[in-house]
Amino acid sequence: MDFDALFQTQLDDLKGEGNYRIFAELERMSGSFPKAKCHDEDAPDQVTVWCSNDYLGMGQHPAVSKAMVDAVQAYGTGAGGTRNISGTNHAHKELEKELADLHNKEAALLFTSGYVSNWAALSTLGSRLPNAVILSDELNHASMIEGIRHAKCPKVIWKHNDPQDLDRKLAALPANATKIVAFESVYSMDGDIAPIREIVEVCEKHGALSYIDEVHAVGMYGPRGGGVAEREGLMDRITLIEGTLGKAFGVMGGYITGSEAMCDFIRSFASGFIFTTALPPAVAAAAQVSIQHLKASNSERDLQKQKVAYLRKRLDQEGIPHLDNPSHIIPVMIGDPVKTRMLADYLMQTYGIYVQPINYPTVPKGTERLRFTPSPLHSTDDIEHLVMALKELWKQCAISHAVA
Amino acid sequence: MDFDALFQTQLDDLKGEGNYRIFAELERMSGSFPKAKCHDEDAPDQVTVWCSNDYLGMGQHPAVSKAMVDAVQAYGTGAGGTRNISGTNHAHKELEKELADLHNKEAALLFTSGYVSNWAALSTLGSRLPNAVILSDELNHASMIEGIRHAKCPKVIWKHNDPQDLDRKLAALPANATKIVAFESVYSMDGDIAPIREIVEVCEKHGALSYIDEVHAVGMYGPRGGGVAEREGLMDRITLIEGTLGKAFGVMGGYITGSEAMCDFIRSFASGFIFTTALPPAVAAAAQVSIQHLKASNSERDLQKQKVAYLRKRLDQEGIPHLDNPSHIIPVMIGDPVKTRMLADYLMQTYGIYVQPINYPTVPKGTERLRFTPSPLHSTDDIEHLVMALKELWKQCAISHAVA
Repeated sequence: MDFDALFQTQLDDLKGEGNYRIFAELERMSGSFPKAKCHDEDAPDQVTVWCSNDYLGMGQHPAVSKAMVDAVQAYGTGAGGTRNISGTNHAHKELEKELADLHNKEAALLFTSGYVSNWAALSTLGSRLPNAVILSDELNHASMIEGIRHAKCPKVIWKHNDPQDLDRKLAALPANATKIVAFESVYSMDGDIAPIREIVEVCEKHGALSYIDEVHAVGMYGPRGGGVAEREGLMDRITLIEGTLGKAFGVMGGYITGSEAMCDFIRSFASGFIFTTALPPAVAAAAQVSIQHLKASNSERDLQKQKVAYLRKRLDQEGIPHLDNPSHIIPVMIGDPVKTRMLADYLMQTYGIYVQPINYPTVPKGTERLRFTPSPLHSTDDIEHLVMALKELWKQCAISHAVA
Repeated sequence: MDFDALFQTQLDDLKGEGNYRIFAELERMSGSFPKAKCHDEDAPDQVTVWCSNDYLGMGQHPAVSKAMVDAVQAYGTGAGGTRNISGTNHAHKELEKELADLHNKEAALLFTSGYVSNWAALSTLGSRLPNAVILSDELNHASMIEGIRHAKCPKVIWKHNDPQDLDRKLAALPANATKIVAFESVYSMDGDIAPIREIVEVCEKHGALSYIDEVHAVGMYGPRGGGVAEREGLMDRITLIEGTLGKAFGVMGGYITGSEAMCDFIRSFASGFIFTTALPPAVAAAAQVSIQHLKASNSERDLQKQKVAYLRKRLDQEGIPHLDNPSHIIPVMIGDPVKTRMLADYLMQTYGIYVQPINYPTVPKGTERLRFTPSPLHSTDDIEHLVMALKELWKQCAISHAVA
């Protein structure tokens, strides 16, 4: 059987739709973020990255890098095994304490990624709790959707950010159901923020377990970077807070926090936790220092807010349409995968501005977009350069100035 | 609803069965492997690790640590995004080339772990290839089982390491089925090795895609560490070779290698690849140096073989029963979770010998075991100390000397 022909057919379909993905090959340069070397043939040697999830530039913070270097020198490179079989290192335990403290919870549990933490936690809760039903916001991330599918328990999709719809759907469930309500704080593609208080109140009314994904919020919201739930004073009313070490904290890994019993339960039963090599101790050590820094320092958060506000203001002044939202994410809707790719290529090749075209399956077809994430380290010049380039492009392409 | 009570009930059941897991809290010390600091209260401050997957001690190799340190200093700590959205770094591309070369394949694709690579690759192949049927060895790893479940295509379980049974089951499938045969080379719990040649011949006879997991073999078998398939001269006849960077290579991450079209297909469609932050460039850089070293150097492999043979010989001389197998893994069967834990605790507390009790769900209930993995860095003294301790234990506990 000609397997390559089977693969190629589906790849050709993707290409025909304009949904084939080409990765920009970057070389990060510590100390120069958001500048990076670019290894792509058609691009300038140096580009400005406008779509990083290293939202605060902590991925090059000297204290974080030093912690990683020191830990490699002290402990070596890998953990040496699964958490159960020789892989639990002191650095993991210390980081778990730090995370529990960040979210004011009894305990935390580390995973190799945010994806795995969502997938493993939701599938374990949904498959092992008696009569479990998972109620999932319709725009939840792929990792939550896959975890819910994997749980094989009944699921109910509720309208995005709609506590009334959630309330109705919870009310319709049998009395003996174990109800799990899964949602995010910041939805990264539109940049909107959930009405967490209302959702939590609905959960409490129905005795539901509340599960929040704060991956696009931890480090960035709340006085200690505990996320939007911290900012709103709601952490104690949420059963499980999930986060990542790979975005604002600038390293890698995922986690959950909650009660001691819940973390122990997921530790004891989740396949995606049990059967995988632990994070390198040096990764854990670096993440811990990043969290500690952002617990104490507001300057990165404050500066990011200023830069986000400034870019929004300048886009408005120049008539560049962008989705309004209360977060740090600035989507510019294009609505067609081929045009989005064309615009991104032009920005990269002509202006050295790197913004990845966002297409299916990351967003629904027809809602393709460019998505800018200003960091504290983007200078005013960087912002003016971007605005000027977009203005030029908008003129040339005669794209509708109305927000799609 | 009292969720903690629900969690606690299931945890209490685990404890009642003796299957509740207690992780040893280690602190690896670069340069001292297999010695590690131990943070457990009842254990000595320093222990000898006898159950690490850092099989060759590469997790503390100076060149590997240096590569990681240099890369942190050059690039910072994290990748900054998913592979698609600003996370593809030059170090990832270089590592993928290295891996393709290691297995003599056109291409390779990196994942955040071996678990994710199996889960993502098998679920994508099984769910997207037309009329796919996955034929899975009955002892395949949890990550493969979960990937196959997730594919939701028909699956057929064949008898462990039995090419005749596989042949019969392939022959029974409809002519239009796309057949995917998934198996491992080294099965890590019994340490047995698959009859790869016979399996590959059966696959070829039926036009099946062959998928081999070499996570417990890469770095350790074959003249360049390409795994058992390299040693047997079979890499070119296997469609997909999956491996890990977290065991013999001493770092973290997983990968697949195969045709350009196949890797591109999985890159383009696998949720577990698309929606997750890329490995830190420093992790990729360290893994690449480890692979390069083990491509050129046989001394670690040779010394490991000697140490494995020596421990086996000494166990035989002292009448300590152990499973015979052709790999580097030495299981000592106990057959009861409580006794296995008791023996492991005694070894740790009395002798500073750390070997994790292996229990359900890692192995079937009733086959609980201790499992020793001698590395090139275990000294003759370490081995004699272990043998003496086991001899003493065997005397005291009057455990059956027959292999379970």
